[in-house]
Amino acid sequence: VKIRGVTSERSTNDYIDDHHKSLRGVFHKKLESVQSEELIRDSEIIFMCFSPAVAMETAPRVQKLNPDAKIIDLSADHRFDDVATYEQWDKVKHANPGYVGSWVYGLPEINKNKIKKARYVANPGCYPTAAILGLAPVMDGRLIDVTSVIVDSKSGISGAGRGLTEATHYPECNETIKAYNVGTHKHTPEIEQVLSAVANKKITLSFTPHLTPMTRGILSTMYCRLRKPLEHGDVLALYKKFYKNAPFVRVLEDWLPETKFVYGSNYCDVGFVVDKRTKRLVIVSAIDNLVKGASGQAVQNMNIMQGYEEKTGLEAPPLYP
Amino acid sequence: VKIRGVTSERSTNDYIDDHHKSLRGVFHKKLESVQSEELIRDSEIIFMCFSPAVAMETAPRVQKLNPDAKIIDLSADHRFDDVATYEQWDKVKHANPGYVGSWVYGLPEINKNKIKKARYVANPGCYPTAAILGLAPVMDGRLIDVTSVIVDSKSGISGAGRGLTEATHYPECNETIKAYNVGTHKHTPEIEQVLSAVANKKITLSFTPHLTPMTRGILSTMYCRLRKPLEHGDVLALYKKFYKNAPFVRVLEDWLPETKFVYGSNYCDVGFVVDKRTKRLVIVSAIDNLVKGASGQAVQNMNIMQGYEEKTGLEAPPLYP
Amino acid sequence: VKIRGVTSERSTNDYIDDHHKSLRGVFHKKLESVQSEELIRDSEIIFMCFSPAVAMETAPRVQKLNPDAKIIDLSADHRFDDVATYEQWDKVKHANPGYVGSWVYGLPEINKNKIKKARYVANPGCYPTAAILGLAPVMDGRLIDVTSVIVDSKSGISGAGRGLTEATHYPECNETIKAYNVGTHKHTPEIEQVLSAVANKKITLSFTPHLTPMTRGILSTMYCRLRKPLEHGDVLALYKKFYKNAPFVRVLEDWLPETKFVYGSNYCDVGFVVDKRTKRLVIVSAIDNLVKGASGQAVQNMNIMQGYEEKTGLEAPPLYP
Amino acid sequence: VKIRGVTSERSTNDYIDDHHKSLRGVFHKKLESVQSEELIRDSEIIFMCFSPAVAMETAPRVQKLNPDAKIIDLSADHRFDDVATYEQWDKVKHANPGYVGSWVYGLPEINKNKIKKARYVANPGCYPTAAILGLAPVMDGRLIDVTSVIVDSKSGISGAGRGLTEATHYPECNETIKAYNVGTHKHTPEIEQVLSAVANKKITLSFTPHLTPMTRGILSTMYCRLRKPLEHGDVLALYKKFYKNAPFVRVLEDWLPETKFVYGSNYCDVGFVVDKRTKRLVIVSAIDNLVKGASGQAVQNMNIMQGYEEKTGLEAPPLYP
Repeated sequence: VKIRGVTSERSTNDYIDDHHKSLRGVFHKKLESVQSEELIRDSEIIFMCFSPAVAMETAPRVQKLNPDAKIIDLSADHRFDDVATYEQWDKVKHANPGYVGSWVYGLPEINKNKIKKARYVANPGCYPTAAILGLAPVMDGRLIDVTSVIVDSKSGISGAGRGLTEATHYPECNETIKAYNVGTHKHTPEIEQVLSAVANKKITLSFTPHLTPMTRGILSTMYCRLRKPLEHGDVLALYKKFYKNAPFVRVLEDWLPETKFVYGSNYCDVGFVVDKRTKRLVIVSAIDNLVKGASGQAVQNMNIMQGYEEKTGLEAPPLYP
Repeated sequence: VKIRGVTSERSTNDYIDDHHKSLRGVFHKKLESVQSEELIRDSEIIFMCFSPAVAMETAPRVQKLNPDAKIIDLSADHRFDDVATYEQWDKVKHANPGYVGSWVYGLPEINKNKIKKARYVANPGCYPTAAILGLAPVMDGRLIDVTSVIVDSKSGISGAGRGLTEATHYPECNETIKAYNVGTHKHTPEIEQVLSAVANKKITLSFTPHLTPMTRGILSTMYCRLRKPLEHGDVLALYKKFYKNAPFVRVLEDWLPETKFVYGSNYCDVGFVVDKRTKRLVIVSAIDNLVKGASGQAVQNMNIMQGYEEKTGLEAPPLYP
Repeated sequence: VKIRGVTSERSTNDYIDDHHKSLRGVFHKKLESVQSEELIRDSEIIFMCFSPAVAMETAPRVQKLNPDAKIIDLSADHRFDDVATYEQWDKVKHANPGYVGSWVYGLPEINKNKIKKARYVANPGCYPTAAILGLAPVMDGRLIDVTSVIVDSKSGISGAGRGLTEATHYPECNETIKAYNVGTHKHTPEIEQVLSAVANKKITLSFTPHLTPMTRGILSTMYCRLRKPLEHGDVLALYKKFYKNAPFVRVLEDWLPETKFVYGSNYCDVGFVVDKRTKRLVIVSAIDNLVKGASGQAVQNMNIMQGYEEKTGLEAPPLYP
Repeated sequence: VKIRGVTSERSTNDYIDDHHKSLRGVFHKKLESVQSEELIRDSEIIFMCFSPAVAMETAPRVQKLNPDAKIIDLSADHRFDDVATYEQWDKVKHANPGYVGSWVYGLPEINKNKIKKARYVANPGCYPTAAILGLAPVMDGRLIDVTSVIVDSKSGISGAGRGLTEATHYPECNETIKAYNVGTHKHTPEIEQVLSAVANKKITLSFTPHLTPMTRGILSTMYCRLRKPLEHGDVLALYKKFYKNAPFVRVLEDWLPETKFVYGSNYCDVGFVVDKRTKRLVIVSAIDNLVKGASGQAVQNMNIMQGYEEKTGLEAPPLYP
């Protein structure tokens, strides 16, 4: 892959390694403006990483300038099949509701065949990636009551983005943990939409995100009521089968995920406990929110869209400890 | 209060501020052995902070040597009304099952009247304190389905104690979060026992503890199915009333707890969200596991047992940030 | 002490515990404006905690409205005997250079007698407090070469204030340490001014601050060339004598300070190593930057100015761990 | 490169990914014993990562069993040209003092030509790597007084190793910073030995390590007295020239290193400030102690010894943030 260009509207004409100093000596390129028509025309694949409600404006322009380009949008702007749901939860009017039908939700473990043929891919959110990969294998409802699902998620602070807020000010968020946006987080309908498709039935679930004092990582703990008595091995076999072609999902046989084991990697680790006493299945999944939850998954999607080997460029092992 | 003596079996005859250097110039006293009969005979109140299964051996000896002494045991040895439950979850044979009936479970917000008259008090565990205080007001079952309760708790690393383990080794537990003892944590039956008494009905619930990269604090997020449509104000009024005589429970009207807001204090903060969409009540509670979850609650119990003002010695505000 | 009022220009008329949620149930008072003449006239002692270059404008107004009020300024505006030095390092024109002579530098361990008689006290900076208390005992130059002093300081992130900056954004400052403002930090001339007075000779030293991934605390490591061979006991005796009337300086006999041992307290711990091999004295001091480095020291100054016992309100032990 | 085998005496016959769970699905190999003669005979290059004083016993056995094998020892056992110095600082009798002369100190930026021809390489310590790379360019003494050098280093907790100690117990080392082994740390003579060789003169310097609340990274702040007035550009030119063939040293032109910018990579970043006021040169260097300070440097040495391209296997950019 050759990187044609990188853009920044705030720092146009600076070099990228002036702002990402870790890249000094590694990647030195002048930041261009997304307004550059030449850049858009020259690009075969375009990754869009904008603040909310920007990609919906930019994508049509890009599609017009370069109808052959493939686009991977890392924002939520093109993730929904139902624009009304997006507008209600994101509290913004969609500028281009006609996108529905031409964008594919880019979670490879669920939609690989559609992604292969897609020109436009909406890259999933970080919380949805962890939650969906944990729950999808049981959402057909044979083993669990799909109306009983609760998702309790814990995210590192980088999930809140690079913008400066009180919530990400070190003295405010270090040495503390809190729940936020309980019952109202925008990722809720995204999780529900994808799991509803898997379940072939409308799913409503509880999702509670928490801000955890660490830079990276999402851990999701999920609770489902069992429909019948089950053994650990039954569930394990199901998960193993479901993910047999998913090189980035590691189904853990005898221990539970923690975020450090996937740090810096594109893995999603999934483990579970069959709690016979309470008749619940407790599933735990872990990702690095900045890799499998964002840029790594975007590269995985590119690989699939382009027909490259799915793991290309994503094989560095997790950084430990 | 006058401190007659402090004990340590491992460091007998050292000074306490050799091992707790923050106390240098504040509290300088030679560590004695708990074998010292003189010490036991001289003491009016005895706090026992032992490893599991030690207090059950020590208490009878102390009770014999000084029948008038009051005892507050910070371990789990005297918390259970049903020794079999203790033995099953703690995986240890109880050395003195006859204690049942003479020890009171020392959660003042639930048992204040019993504590007033008690000679022997079993100080609650840290997770149970946070969970029970969050759930007790609704456990009569009028508002929620008491069979639907899920407790998802996040604890700082100090909850694991001062012993050296891989799980508390900084490079292993920094920058990561994990669930542990899912479905099997010893605090589960303790939470169930107390809530069963409140509910007047046997309660079985799911409890999942998590190890969070911070020194202090427990946050519990609790999920209950609503039995009928409710408004925020209804639940608020209930909680306010339930805790109207509880000086250390702060019922939050319009925001949710985070552990930093109770750091170093004896407060338990409780907040909640009525999620009409999913028909669930989501309750969040926060404590400092080393204060309200341990030593602070022990002092609160002493105050009540002795007839002192309940807040004596516990009025320092939380340390922030 | 009775708190007459608290002010905030940004949040006037809000309650203080809306913004400092840890104070809920502890301290509930409406924020007033510093423009309130009534508030100023009613106050016997006024603590000023402004951004740089605000106190220099506010103090004259307060002094006129209430000539009897005592003022403790926590900013750098009134710390310098030489306005030109302030203007050069702080890069701001002083609005009221005439203050010199009527304000006392409020480091009690050095200036207690002056503070006793002062109406206006300039509360020291956090780095200067740690550095000066570590170095003062040897600055007469009998033991060390006072031209050789190097101060290498490590501060927690709260030292950067409550304002939102990239440097205090959690993902940028967690899991990293860096030096900043090397050779140019504003606290350099403050340290030099006070040590010059102690040394009775103009002192120039190197001061390097570092941003450390923790909320609170400053550790200063200081290097001085010995003028002659010395034993540990010689230096210890000197420090013990120097601080014999200083209730908040703990001279450590046989171990070195760390910031956790003073967490949340007004202590400054000082320890040292006589390194015979390199002929250097290495001194280490630790404070909580928000207590002895700011508000705690301000209270200590108030106590001295008012003739109260110096430790009043400051006796809570450090919070550990 | 093909990995013939990995050893562990404590966990022989377990799989490596049972103990390093991040490697699940990445690297699955049974741990052998270092006693295995077959393993030693089959290996072309052997990396030794033992506790202190083990490699000195193991190396002779390996050298006898497989005289052709190259060895890279990550411990301090073979780093010293003067066994007496090692024995004095490490407080252990060397079992095989005859190694001197046949082992090369493996800091590629200083000894690349010797490493190319070496069969046995002693991989440098983490603190020495950061300190030496920061200081080497000026140790010829033309710009600085080489007798004035002070090295103040800050290390993440992983530098203390995987063994469980009170110093690495999370609640003890989180939210605190401390100096340790002041004037007595074993890495002092290692730094002095290498810089003495560069200076062609016996160097004695002050070295103070600090334990910093982060997992990875070493930052060293170094102070040297200037021999004459200098401009920033003079020093910059010198450093650029010194490191023109060093692909892993990044000389920073206009900002200072921080450990996050090298996180997970083999880079050593070096920056400096010419402080004309104090007539000192302040140099700051940063490495990841587990990569350039340990295993990464070992791979770099292997590359050089084997004639591979020096950066092979080490090109992953730092992980940020």
